[in-house]
Amino acid sequence: MLLDDEIEMYGRMAVALNIIEGCREFAAMIPEVRTNLVYARPNAGKREDVLGIDGRITVVNGLPHAAGKPRFGASSHMARLLVEIGKTDASIRAGIDFANDPHLAKWLEDYCRSRNWVFSVIDRRNEPEEIKEAEGASMPWKVAAAISAAGGRVPKIVYETGAVGKEPVSVLVGRDTIIVAEEICEVERLYHGRR
Amino acid sequence: MLLDDEIEMYGRMAVALNIIEGCREFAAMIPEVRTNLVYARPNAGKREDVLGIDGRITVVNGLPHAAGKPRFGASSHMARLLVEIGKTDASIRAGIDFANDPHLAKWLEDYCRSRNWVFSVIDRRNEPEEIKEAEGASMPWKVAAAISAAGGRVPKIVYETGAVGKEPVSVLVGRDTIIVAEEICEVERLYHGRR
Amino acid sequence: MLLDDEIEMYGRMAVALNIIEGCREFAAMIPEVRTNLVYARPNAGKREDVLGIDGRITVVNGLPHAAGKPRFGASSHMARLLVEIGKTDASIRAGIDFANDPHLAKWLEDYCRSRNWVFSVIDRRNEPEEIKEAEGASMPWKVAAAISAAGGRVPKIVYETGAVGKEPVSVLVGRDTIIVAEEICEVERLYHGRR
Amino acid sequence: MLLDDEIEMYGRMAVALNIIEGCREFAAMIPEVRTNLVYARPNAGKREDVLGIDGRITVVNGLPHAAGKPRFGASSHMARLLVEIGKTDASIRAGIDFANDPHLAKWLEDYCRSRNWVFSVIDRRNEPEEIKEAEGASMPWKVAAAISAAGGRVPKIVYETGAVGKEPVSVLVGRDTIIVAEEICEVERLYHGRR
Repeated sequence: MLLDDEIEMYGRMAVALNIIEGCREFAAMIPEVRTNLVYARPNAGKREDVLGIDGRITVVNGLPHAAGKPRFGASSHMARLLVEIGKTDASIRAGIDFANDPHLAKWLEDYCRSRNWVFSVIDRRNEPEEIKEAEGASMPWKVAAAISAAGGRVPKIVYETGAVGKEPVSVLVGRDTIIVAEEICEVERLYHGRR
Repeated sequence: MLLDDEIEMYGRMAVALNIIEGCREFAAMIPEVRTNLVYARPNAGKREDVLGIDGRITVVNGLPHAAGKPRFGASSHMARLLVEIGKTDASIRAGIDFANDPHLAKWLEDYCRSRNWVFSVIDRRNEPEEIKEAEGASMPWKVAAAISAAGGRVPKIVYETGAVGKEPVSVLVGRDTIIVAEEICEVERLYHGRR
Repeated sequence: MLLDDEIEMYGRMAVALNIIEGCREFAAMIPEVRTNLVYARPNAGKREDVLGIDGRITVVNGLPHAAGKPRFGASSHMARLLVEIGKTDASIRAGIDFANDPHLAKWLEDYCRSRNWVFSVIDRRNEPEEIKEAEGASMPWKVAAAISAAGGRVPKIVYETGAVGKEPVSVLVGRDTIIVAEEICEVERLYHGRR
Repeated sequence: MLLDDEIEMYGRMAVALNIIEGCREFAAMIPEVRTNLVYARPNAGKREDVLGIDGRITVVNGLPHAAGKPRFGASSHMARLLVEIGKTDASIRAGIDFANDPHLAKWLEDYCRSRNWVFSVIDRRNEPEEIKEAEGASMPWKVAAAISAAGGRVPKIVYETGAVGKEPVSVLVGRDTIIVAEEICEVERLYHGRR
């Protein structure tokens, strides 16, 4: 028997995907590793508690395009990020990742200030070697670093620098997948319109 | 601003589609005109009030496959059916069509009796010429004929015979799109398992 | 080992599909039973010798959209049509079906005359009862009727009236799937531009 | 007017994609940045001369899945690789990238020796800073490094180590997209079967 909660999650994901797929500007910000949009159950403890897009979101015909359908367990990286963040702030249940570069990072920092959002940078060059080498240890370190850099709060946007073998990506998180989709599209439209 | 009702409708459609796309038996019952799964807002009055599958449900690789995504206004025929039925019984908000033939019709009649469901037949050869020729008049006539044949109640399943230029299709309706998806898959599994 | 012939057939189908999917006008002419675009091997004798679109071509977002990929054996009805026509004229290896109505039929007749194309009508009300009832007998009867109505030649376009349980559809055939795709798109553009 | 050459290229890509999408083992080797399968015109000089998969190849339902259709100009990175390689050996017209790691690299080196294939390693830590910073300079440097490491020949497989912000990927190249698809699937099956 399906819980009402799951139905609502699928519904919010469908609406959020419609927003993302209709946002042409977002196509320019999809990183090489592609984007995932994730939405966690309350108190999610593992990957299977998180709804993600099977095959991630890619660019087809110049528009963002979900390769597959939303499915619990479809995301690994972004799901673990949400699970880890939830240990500090259980109200954060959704997130999306996007391409960045130093120019965008500078602009985002100003934008976050104007919206009173917490912005945080993770410099992966600071990641200890023993963390890099231990399976599954990077994510707790990264989330702890981002929260620590933000004075103990979960940041709204995290800018992560690249590392050896790792493309730099940023993440925007929030309470709800629809809100996250609307916020990232507004960010992209403002950033592109600026030029 | 999205109403909670719309989010719930998208959620129920996503879950219902997962059920249909996972039901291999249903592929054998998709008619030449393909299938639509529709879900109407409460008190739907027009096509745009009804969520349907853009491009309908077809068969790809032997499995049911939604050609596009759920979208309000995506269905014409099935949407008008629900709007018309809603005038008699507002609790009926979902429906799906499927291929039939005289053998299935006979089996369905018995199955409906066993489940205490109302079964009705529309013989389109009885459709008056003036109805056939008037734009948009066929659907009210068909729904009235089905309800009249069922003694004034909205039937659970309607078996519609073919007519000139019209493939025969049956329709199963219900309160909710998830329930309708589960019911039609159970019908298909029982009918196929029987052979 | 793949024959060069098969590679060329897949290549021509890909190019033909790009033409069809880029022809917005064609969306208005896709019948309820959807369209298939088919391409037969030389001297095709059975369904598996004919390349067709898995799940047929439907309308998504207002544009023609192939539900699946080209696959040998994916088509039944249109494949049998080509096999049957090939018995009279082996140079005819491709075809596409499309919605029609008496107005289009009249316009098509004039258009065919202007292009020196053979146009033929099959009135399915003339189909003998014993043919209707015999499994697999309709297609040979239809093709023979169309060729006979055209004085022994294979027509370029066949307009088929509806019958009980059968939507009326027309078919355009030719030597090659790219040519057929270009010709049907030109037909649609001229017919729609006319209004 | 389409050249016969283009039709043949689309045909070979369709066949090659069928091979890749049917190779379950390959799903495990699709890197985070996803895979592209590319096929260059003879003497390709720019991105638009190279057929690639729009949206690249991702994993959906555990199987390799092309996000969009083959399109000239759809690939950037892999297209530039082929253009660069073509300057040394014009017979190399197809390629595919895949995930690697030190274990696979060791195995690949032995496998290449057994097949008499040239295997080459690019250590991106050796990339000069002025190359990294100059737009578009990395690819010529990488291809030159791979060819130089292979004693002046174009290698069959190149193993590229990661760098800051760059996921390590390997590339297999060949004369023809069908051959490349068959070869990479054989590699994956042998490597996975070994365990």
